Amino acid sequence: MSNKTLESFRERIQELVYLREALSLMEWDLRTGAPKKGHQLRAEAIGYLASRHHELSTSAEMGEWLEALSEPNVLKTLSDIDRALVRVEKKQFDRMHKIPSKLMHEYQILVSTAESVWEDAKAQNDFPMFLPYLEKIVAIQKQFIDYWGYEGHPYNTLLDQYEPGMTVEHLDTLFGDLRSHLVPLVHAIAEKGLQVDPTTFVHQYSLDKQQELNRLFLQGMGYDFAAGRIDTTVHPFQTTINRYDVRVTTHYNLDDLRETLFGTIHEGGHALYEQGISRDLIGTSLSEGTSMGIHESQSRFWENMIGRSLPFWEHNYDLVQKAFPSVFANVPLHDFYRWINHVEPSLIRTEADEVTYNLHIMVRYELEKGLFSGTYAVADLPQLWREKMKDCLGVVPEDDATGVLQDVHWAGGSFGYFPSYALGNLYAAQFQHTLRKAIPDLDEQVRTGNVHVIREWLRTQIHQYGKMQEPAEIVMRVTGEPLSGAYLVEYLRDKYRAIYKL
Amino acid sequence: MSNKTLESFRERIQELVYLREALSLMEWDLRTGAPKKGHQLRAEAIGYLASRHHELSTSAEMGEWLEALSEPNVLKTLSDIDRALVRVEKKQFDRMHKIPSKLMHEYQILVSTAESVWEDAKAQNDFPMFLPYLEKIVAIQKQFIDYWGYEGHPYNTLLDQYEPGMTVEHLDTLFGDLRSHLVPLVHAIAEKGLQVDPTTFVHQYSLDKQQELNRLFLQGMGYDFAAGRIDTTVHPFQTTINRYDVRVTTHYNLDDLRETLFGTIHEGGHALYEQGISRDLIGTSLSEGTSMGIHESQSRFWENMIGRSLPFWEHNYDLVQKAFPSVFANVPLHDFYRWINHVEPSLIRTEADEVTYNLHIMVRYELEKGLFSGTYAVADLPQLWREKMKDCLGVVPEDDATGVLQDVHWAGGSFGYFPSYALGNLYAAQFQHTLRKAIPDLDEQVRTGNVHVIREWLRTQIHQYGKMQEPAEIVMRVTGEPLSGAYLVEYLRDKYRAIYKL
Repeated sequence: MSNKTLESFRERIQELVYLREALSLMEWDLRTGAPKKGHQLRAEAIGYLASRHHELSTSAEMGEWLEALSEPNVLKTLSDIDRALVRVEKKQFDRMHKIPSKLMHEYQILVSTAESVWEDAKAQNDFPMFLPYLEKIVAIQKQFIDYWGYEGHPYNTLLDQYEPGMTVEHLDTLFGDLRSHLVPLVHAIAEKGLQVDPTTFVHQYSLDKQQELNRLFLQGMGYDFAAGRIDTTVHPFQTTINRYDVRVTTHYNLDDLRETLFGTIHEGGHALYEQGISRDLIGTSLSEGTSMGIHESQSRFWENMIGRSLPFWEHNYDLVQKAFPSVFANVPLHDFYRWINHVEPSLIRTEADEVTYNLHIMVRYELEKGLFSGTYAVADLPQLWREKMKDCLGVVPEDDATGVLQDVHWAGGSFGYFPSYALGNLYAAQFQHTLRKAIPDLDEQVRTGNVHVIREWLRTQIHQYGKMQEPAEIVMRVTGEPLSGAYLVEYLRDKYRAIYKL
Repeated sequence: MSNKTLESFRERIQELVYLREALSLMEWDLRTGAPKKGHQLRAEAIGYLASRHHELSTSAEMGEWLEALSEPNVLKTLSDIDRALVRVEKKQFDRMHKIPSKLMHEYQILVSTAESVWEDAKAQNDFPMFLPYLEKIVAIQKQFIDYWGYEGHPYNTLLDQYEPGMTVEHLDTLFGDLRSHLVPLVHAIAEKGLQVDPTTFVHQYSLDKQQELNRLFLQGMGYDFAAGRIDTTVHPFQTTINRYDVRVTTHYNLDDLRETLFGTIHEGGHALYEQGISRDLIGTSLSEGTSMGIHESQSRFWENMIGRSLPFWEHNYDLVQKAFPSVFANVPLHDFYRWINHVEPSLIRTEADEVTYNLHIMVRYELEKGLFSGTYAVADLPQLWREKMKDCLGVVPEDDATGVLQDVHWAGGSFGYFPSYALGNLYAAQFQHTLRKAIPDLDEQVRTGNVHVIREWLRTQIHQYGKMQEPAEIVMRVTGEPLSGAYLVEYLRDKYRAIYKL
């Protein structure tokens, strides 16, 4: 291998990063206010750039460079960054290369159609309308699994796309353990019932005050507005345009302040991760969060473990009181704290509290696992959904729109993605456990508004690495042990026993 | 030539259109709120996509396709659209191909540096700081002229980039004629002085009311918000992201309502042009305004001939009165009309009224022409500027920041561009003359808010063609004669004689 190979490889990676900057911006724009009539042409332009990205990342030269650079005696001469880059890109290259391009093309058209069919099917509560598309998607995903190969359970290779190294074997243990503790906790909470009168908080929360609060809370977390911005959208997300352009979006609900508040802190948690990645990784595909689960650990940590904690509100409650005095001036902090931590089994995942949320994920996980082991048929999903919801959460949807059709993920072919959401909570709790050992007066720091000690710890321990390390490696390095369910159980039990006086 | 050639050519054009969609959005985003710290990486990504665009549009295959398609016996078999496309692309290809890529590369780095040097030089009123850059830009532009070749005056080939077919010979006549009428008119107006007390309008014009008015006026003109949007920027512009995503931007001055009002109507005029192009031209480089001058004719027509006309305000004045009753409730319409049509020689082009504006352009035209004929040296520009300003407008800047350094155009190498601004006014007046014959009760239509008859006329006569026809062809077809200075002179004389009671 010559130096020329490494140089060409790095140049190609840089090109891909530039293309992704364009693509991310085009997507962000579509979701934050691009005019409706222009969407169709925009989709075509995105399709063009995405194909170009695909072509450049799967080209024959790319294969040759990766092969040359992966040879053990070459690999060991590379810098840490280049070695990680070769690992990440080779994995991606191999995955893409194993799928015949005709099948990939067919699949892409299928999911793009399926997403709009799903939208209609959900609106009309018509699962049979969506069924043939979903069957076809699952069938092609099964072909992908065959092309990719797998160890253990066939679902493992799907999981690995979003959470490198994660397996059914590991998830079964983690989720089994979690479930056995959460189900009784949810029951105990349900028996105690509401701890606060919800009518106290009925109000029209004005948009400009909500916006002001969002800015204050993001600033308080240490989000850098000179390297980011906040916009309005329907389904909030965080997106990284480039290393110094890390954007968050939010949705305003004029009837319920909690939606934008915790949504924004959540996306802010994602953004801090991206704003904390080492600048040495700029221009490479390592300048991103390492996995969906680790990413979610950052957003859920800020949203729930900090943003829904008592010390946080001991410091910040006056901001909310000043913004909406007619609602909160006479509401004691503890009532506000109970309001933002209300637990109740419900039908919709995205609206679930932090205790029941994990049970929603288990429903989807069980179904996905069954689909790919061949135990379940796609046509049986609506009925299976109702059964699993009853088992896990004790509630059953009256229709498919609020049941099996509620999430877009399957229409987009994102099988293996859902577990990341619960993994985020598990990682977050385990990181928190270590953080409390590192900063023993953590609650006092939060109570005095000094959350930047937390952000700095996360940056040093997790953020700066980007994709340099895989999830299991990070968990082991930071916490000294593999991922376990115990910390989340402990955290939830302690917190909600106190709130619900169990 | 085979059908394959035409097909490959059309595919390539489509690719270029997609790349331009990405580039336009990236630029729009930079100018409407992209976070500051991300600008440097964004500039790199734009540079990458722009090179890719350049590579695809100047590649050897492109040259072969254009040559094959331009053969007379092939050209005549093409559809009107394909024939126009070949003409437009071949012209562009030949221009780009004649410049050695090394020189082009050197030039691009130079202007990108020069723009930031100009910013500093303007801020510090330091022309000598900018001088070596401007000298180099002019020197390279002279090399370009040699590579491109020219007929008549060397400046003609620079003009032709922005206004195909325009020449120094034609401009000298047009501008000479215009100047001989405008200078006495400006003097006569100056002698009469202010027709309205400006302190009447001193007010803090609230942002939200200004925004509301902008939406109302754009809607009134027939701007389609489902295929566009309005955002805030420092130097307003209109940009077309795609055929159904045509955006305007504006700047708010809380001290002077006129800035955003007429700025928005101006950009709205550009936008109506782009929203009116035939959908048959989508996916080609014909789906744009045909030239800078014709584009400016649309913006200036709406801004001045409609937006600053009495009938327009007979219909719309109550909107402004309702938005700012404390200012306008007791101001008679005619005083408002005089306020928005106040004429006074001033130093800054972008702030000039519609009479003196043209004289600003003549100053720049004379200087540019002299630079490229070799009569003037770059180092003498500050002194020449002062002399020409005195001659044309009777005012002399006290420093270079408000003189020769005021506009960014030269730092960006846009020589030949300025005349388009005055050409826009000339075209607009000539189109208006024809429009008044086509719709004899035009003023009555405007007075009753029926401006969509105007928009429809412009669409039918001009907008729909995009780049299918060149400026001179459009003027001849629409008005039955070549471009003349007489209509602008007549329009300005009639309008301002009435306002200033001359």
